[in-house]
Amino acid sequence: MNHHPYAECIEACDQCARACDNCAVACLQEADPKPMARCVALDIDCAAVCRLASGAMARDSEHAQAICALCAQLCEACGTECGRHHHMDHCQECAEACRVCAEACRRAALHGSVGAP
Amino acid sequence: MNHHPYAECIEACDQCARACDNCAVACLQEADPKPMARCVALDIDCAAVCRLASGAMARDSEHAQAICALCAQLCEACGTECGRHHHMDHCQECAEACRVCAEACRRAALHGSVGAP
Amino acid sequence: MNHHPYAECIEACDQCARACDNCAVACLQEADPKPMARCVALDIDCAAVCRLASGAMARDSEHAQAICALCAQLCEACGTECGRHHHMDHCQECAEACRVCAEACRRAALHGSVGAP
Amino acid sequence: MNHHPYAECIEACDQCARACDNCAVACLQEADPKPMARCVALDIDCAAVCRLASGAMARDSEHAQAICALCAQLCEACGTECGRHHHMDHCQECAEACRVCAEACRRAALHGSVGAP
Repeated sequence: MNHHPYAECIEACDQCARACDNCAVACLQEADPKPMARCVALDIDCAAVCRLASGAMARDSEHAQAICALCAQLCEACGTECGRHHHMDHCQECAEACRVCAEACRRAALHGSVGAP
Repeated sequence: MNHHPYAECIEACDQCARACDNCAVACLQEADPKPMARCVALDIDCAAVCRLASGAMARDSEHAQAICALCAQLCEACGTECGRHHHMDHCQECAEACRVCAEACRRAALHGSVGAP
Repeated sequence: MNHHPYAECIEACDQCARACDNCAVACLQEADPKPMARCVALDIDCAAVCRLASGAMARDSEHAQAICALCAQLCEACGTECGRHHHMDHCQECAEACRVCAEACRRAALHGSVGAP
Repeated sequence: MNHHPYAECIEACDQCARACDNCAVACLQEADPKPMARCVALDIDCAAVCRLASGAMARDSEHAQAICALCAQLCEACGTECGRHHHMDHCQECAEACRVCAEACRRAALHGSVGAP
């Protein structure tokens, strides 16, 4: 599948989904999860949309570009929230995965599988 | 959950996901599935996005409106394709579910949980 | 889709997924979400498996019975945890949806679409 | 996420989901998709369960082992069917991804995150 036209963005989405799922559970295990509530909610949303986008691209869906545009939006929101929690490694790791994925999704949304590297 | 602000649209999304999944498999079982290939592909996409939207609304996600806007788009595309297959009950049933869901999602996208009945 | 052989269990799964998603977010919004952490985690798992099972039945999948058996297991675990939180309506509503869904999934797992009402 | 206790199995599941999604659409685009109908149906099931398993492991879910056991079963069924279509690259690629994923899931189901490399 490495020759897949959307390969780079599929990989970014799968990595981001893992980081979001991991972050959600780590947030819940913090001593005080109250300030993490919005982070958990965005992690759940973002993981779901990343997995949807990954599948749509793997199927070379007609709607892959529209789905990637939405995914970029979710990744930005989730990454911004995670980025605020400076002392939590799971949040920083998630923020970075979200940043990479948002960028890849914006490119895929604009250019489709033709413009993908 | 009937008192849920998004209740009507959640129900429409769940019904549409079922109709799409059912249609996909029924298309594959036709004597000649070749002319149904695009229908199957759109059914898979549409079912996935309907289930995503249903979950996002049930979680009253910040991004529920954006997800519903995308879902309306998918439902229209899938409903239009299914609508072309006049002699197939599974396609006609799916086209109707897509029409109802597209309408509910457009309303939810515009008004959010506030404007939902 | 009401004539679908798995109709009753599909409906139970969709209702349970909504109740779990709703419960997860309501738990996160409690004044002290710490004691709800396991509940949120099980809600996320259970919602995901319920939506998987609903789709597999709607597609009359060869593996629908095995998926329903797993779903029954998840619903029991989630319902037991939710049942412990007596003063929270979202948990009590979710516990009841889990109980109904676990029963429907056990029947579907045993009898498949043949034994479904 | 490379240090994640389930890292190897998560990677196998994500790779398998991509291969299944890709195979489903490629089957539909064959000149005669009729003999591929069961392959498409199994691809859809297997992709869905692989993404579920990947998420459950990333969340270190209590039910990750049970979900991996189901995933191993789906991967075997899908891989066996794909393996029959000797002249189709997408099927052979998918069969190999299913074989790797079934093995990783069987190990994860037995040993959980403790036994994972």
